Amino acid sequence: MNIFRVDVNASIVHREEVPQDFLYLGGRRLTAEIISREVPPRCHPLGEKNKVVIAPGLLTGSIAPSSGRLSVGTKSPLTGTIKESNVGGTAGQALALWGVKAIVIEGVPSPGKSYLLEIGPGGVELKDAGNIRGMGNYVAAGKLRDIYGPDVSLILTGPAGERKFPVSTVAVTDLSGNPSRHAGRGGVGAVLGAKGIKAIVIKQPAKKALEAKDKKGFSETCKVFAESLYKSKKTLREYGTASLVDVVNAVKGLPVNNFSRGCAVQAASINGEKLASRCKERGGATGKPCSRSCVIQCSNVYRDPGGKYVTSGLEYETLVLMGSNCGIFDLDEIAELDFLCDDLGIDTMETGAAIAVAMDAGLLPFGDAGGAKRLVEEIGKGTLLGKVLGQGALVTGKVLGVARVPVVKGQALSAYDPRVFKGTGVTYATSPMGADHTAGNCLPGRGGVNISQAEGQIKVSKDLQVISGICDMLGLCIFVGPLPENLDTFASLVSRYTGESLSGEDLCAMSLQMLKKETSFNFSAGISPVENDVPEFMREEPNQDAGFVFDVPKEELHAFWD
Amino acid sequence: MNIFRVDVNASIVHREEVPQDFLYLGGRRLTAEIISREVPPRCHPLGEKNKVVIAPGLLTGSIAPSSGRLSVGTKSPLTGTIKESNVGGTAGQALALWGVKAIVIEGVPSPGKSYLLEIGPGGVELKDAGNIRGMGNYVAAGKLRDIYGPDVSLILTGPAGERKFPVSTVAVTDLSGNPSRHAGRGGVGAVLGAKGIKAIVIKQPAKKALEAKDKKGFSETCKVFAESLYKSKKTLREYGTASLVDVVNAVKGLPVNNFSRGCAVQAASINGEKLASRCKERGGATGKPCSRSCVIQCSNVYRDPGGKYVTSGLEYETLVLMGSNCGIFDLDEIAELDFLCDDLGIDTMETGAAIAVAMDAGLLPFGDAGGAKRLVEEIGKGTLLGKVLGQGALVTGKVLGVARVPVVKGQALSAYDPRVFKGTGVTYATSPMGADHTAGNCLPGRGGVNISQAEGQIKVSKDLQVISGICDMLGLCIFVGPLPENLDTFASLVSRYTGESLSGEDLCAMSLQMLKKETSFNFSAGISPVENDVPEFMREEPNQDAGFVFDVPKEELHAFWD
Repeated sequence: MNIFRVDVNASIVHREEVPQDFLYLGGRRLTAEIISREVPPRCHPLGEKNKVVIAPGLLTGSIAPSSGRLSVGTKSPLTGTIKESNVGGTAGQALALWGVKAIVIEGVPSPGKSYLLEIGPGGVELKDAGNIRGMGNYVAAGKLRDIYGPDVSLILTGPAGERKFPVSTVAVTDLSGNPSRHAGRGGVGAVLGAKGIKAIVIKQPAKKALEAKDKKGFSETCKVFAESLYKSKKTLREYGTASLVDVVNAVKGLPVNNFSRGCAVQAASINGEKLASRCKERGGATGKPCSRSCVIQCSNVYRDPGGKYVTSGLEYETLVLMGSNCGIFDLDEIAELDFLCDDLGIDTMETGAAIAVAMDAGLLPFGDAGGAKRLVEEIGKGTLLGKVLGQGALVTGKVLGVARVPVVKGQALSAYDPRVFKGTGVTYATSPMGADHTAGNCLPGRGGVNISQAEGQIKVSKDLQVISGICDMLGLCIFVGPLPENLDTFASLVSRYTGESLSGEDLCAMSLQMLKKETSFNFSAGISPVENDVPEFMREEPNQDAGFVFDVPKEELHAFWD
Repeated sequence: MNIFRVDVNASIVHREEVPQDFLYLGGRRLTAEIISREVPPRCHPLGEKNKVVIAPGLLTGSIAPSSGRLSVGTKSPLTGTIKESNVGGTAGQALALWGVKAIVIEGVPSPGKSYLLEIGPGGVELKDAGNIRGMGNYVAAGKLRDIYGPDVSLILTGPAGERKFPVSTVAVTDLSGNPSRHAGRGGVGAVLGAKGIKAIVIKQPAKKALEAKDKKGFSETCKVFAESLYKSKKTLREYGTASLVDVVNAVKGLPVNNFSRGCAVQAASINGEKLASRCKERGGATGKPCSRSCVIQCSNVYRDPGGKYVTSGLEYETLVLMGSNCGIFDLDEIAELDFLCDDLGIDTMETGAAIAVAMDAGLLPFGDAGGAKRLVEEIGKGTLLGKVLGQGALVTGKVLGVARVPVVKGQALSAYDPRVFKGTGVTYATSPMGADHTAGNCLPGRGGVNISQAEGQIKVSKDLQVISGICDMLGLCIFVGPLPENLDTFASLVSRYTGESLSGEDLCAMSLQMLKKETSFNFSAGISPVENDVPEFMREEPNQDAGFVFDVPKEELHAFWD
């Protein structure tokens, strides 16, 4: 495999051998390594010294179940921290099959330049983006499919990323060619936009899977793991991540109206059953995989009453941040909002949180779905209000004079109220990424402690962050379960794939080292451990419905990574 | 003397004895002490846990020359740091003469409440602001003079402070009753606005001066010092601080067009001579004191061609940040901008820097004075653009997508390019206040090193910050000279005034302790020492005219306060 360096200033691509010490790095661990080595921690995230590293996970491209993740790493324009946001879809596997260990994009383009990076049998080539420039993700994906064929995999910077808005995502096409999968967090799309990369086009590789060193053993582990996943993930397959709506609403940890409430009777209108039946009755689908290796198949296709495609991959986080947290409980409206965000390439979580803050400021009432869509369109048009919202919830709160702003290190909380989900609150507070549930989501049952008791959550969160980190470096979807009982399977997969014998503890040590490297980057960037905390208001105002404040001691959060 | 605690939540005022250990604290040292003890470093600056401390300097109210300064301390909504911004005018002395050691304003008012704090023979009383609420500073000052008489001293929150904009100042009336003196930096006016304090009305005290313990000795020291100041400050008296325009332009350290140039031929249109002759020929004035004890008398009155009052105290910093740095070289235009800012209660430096950033974004061309006035008016009206600009240069740069943003710790640089004024650059980088020239301005001749050589500037800046800190705690105007040769005079003043024998070294130790206390607050607030640096672009782009970058090693700045 090779590392490809794309210098957008000189318009050239260098192919590099993979250094010996990078051989067993992949995904988040590889992006963390390259960013830490090469990006000055205090540099302007949208300037020439920042880089974007796109790296498939270590197992991505193999036959390992649900191993199609692709990591996008950079210094975040939203948080100022190091950032890794990973994404499913078809691009990770396609890149790995073309022998791409990582793409490192560096420099800044000449003014007016917009590039398309083409990857295929001819290698990696930088071309002019032509008329793709400025297009929405859906239209751009359609045009590129017309040119390159329906089997092409695409990585796209949407119009918001082209405008360098810190809410911007990097979109990836799914198995139907729709740009519905997003490396959503931290504004990675803004950095790709700042590099002038509009699209990365990955032609269909001839190879179907990368071979393991111990082919037979690997195949055996994969088979057993796949069967177990298929059996245990029935709810996700049937109802998708939306199945969490009822679970979270029941424990009163559902963000409603800018985190002012913890549950809502209307939650039943946007829950898993409702979404699944809506998808099915209109000729959409549930139980869809987002990449070829996926056995969990939690994705869906949402159609309008006339049967017309609206969006795919409508997730729990979107249903909450664009839905309940904005007082919106109408699936059709949320699906449309999801489409608009996917098309512009903006994070439904950060954008939804910013819109809820704008609602709290009185700019529009909670529940105003039409107003919310207009706000998203303002981001697309780049109006002044769009530029403000495009900075995310923190800046929106400052400008509009709202103190209740649910962010950690500048990134919006996701769809679990930390006053109820205290372990997830610890993760929000301490993850090197800013508030991010995927870094270690302490759902009921995980770690053996009550989700709402303060004691014990430090350990629960740390263990989960370490194992979630393993998924991120291997390219495994987090839904395989970042759980101690899966460590042996992860170790077996890696050992048989690479031929290097590794234990679960070895993987944990690697993940912890990665997390410490990220934390160290942040420290050098000026992000103080004192910032390891939930928003001030969550320690003072009880969640009205659950009655809890967040009460894990600050000192323990500050010292979390010591 | 007494400390008055104003609880705006309960609408009550408590009188407290001055604790023994506060006895010899005044000004910035007292505000730093109270804020450090009482304000949680991570609290929301505009929330109920923040406080505003208003404290005359230790010598304020005495006959010491140019000792009328009043400190306003708080946690800044602009920088997130501890903040002290001090101001001349008549209020500091009037407060001291009424026996006010400090006013501590705490809590948040009930919605819709706006207060007037009245200080006089009846003590300190909290009253309803009535129809003063929402008024511009000039109209409000006029109304209050109508009610309380022409000799009243006023401390005012302008309309921008009422809107809690982080560019807001606390205004103080001068000897003519005009609200032309401002505690301008760090958004102290926004915090006073958040407390619902629209005005502090200080009736004319009967007492003319506070007595020294060693009356005769103190009087003698004051006399000698006053004579020396009167003699040595002739240029300031004749031309005001505008005399710096030529000096700074000559060494190519004048901010022009958002710090993209270091000098301009048009600087001659806004220099000291031009301003002085303009003031005189139109029946304005130069050589005005801003408070009774002032012997330096650097202030002025600017009138329009018809002889109508435009503004007072038109300073070098305004001429540059609202002038040359916006490409505006017309005194009439800059004077009008100064009036608009004084009336709204916004910092001409922060606002000017934000406007220049907006010009750099292409929102309006450099040199467009009419456009600049419209932008200031947008702040006054609280339009969305006004709300963005009202956040200062940093947020304006983010929203408008400008990377060249001249701020340190969120506060705009003042009128000295740190690539040329490297010692001042060290002060910008390391002051606990964010970029602030008054914290230690390394002008030519100070510290015995060439202003533009990197070596030696750490020591020059530290010495100046310590001695400037002494001025800030004593209530001495910085223009008396924060110089080692004045230390004995400062010590003699304090010793004879308080009856406690103190040396210059003792004062330096006190000031250093204060600076470390401030730095420690910042550390607890999450402001990392890594933020001790000038803006990134100043290390990379040479000042086009001088040819220098800023090159004091980062490591030395990070370790500055160790």
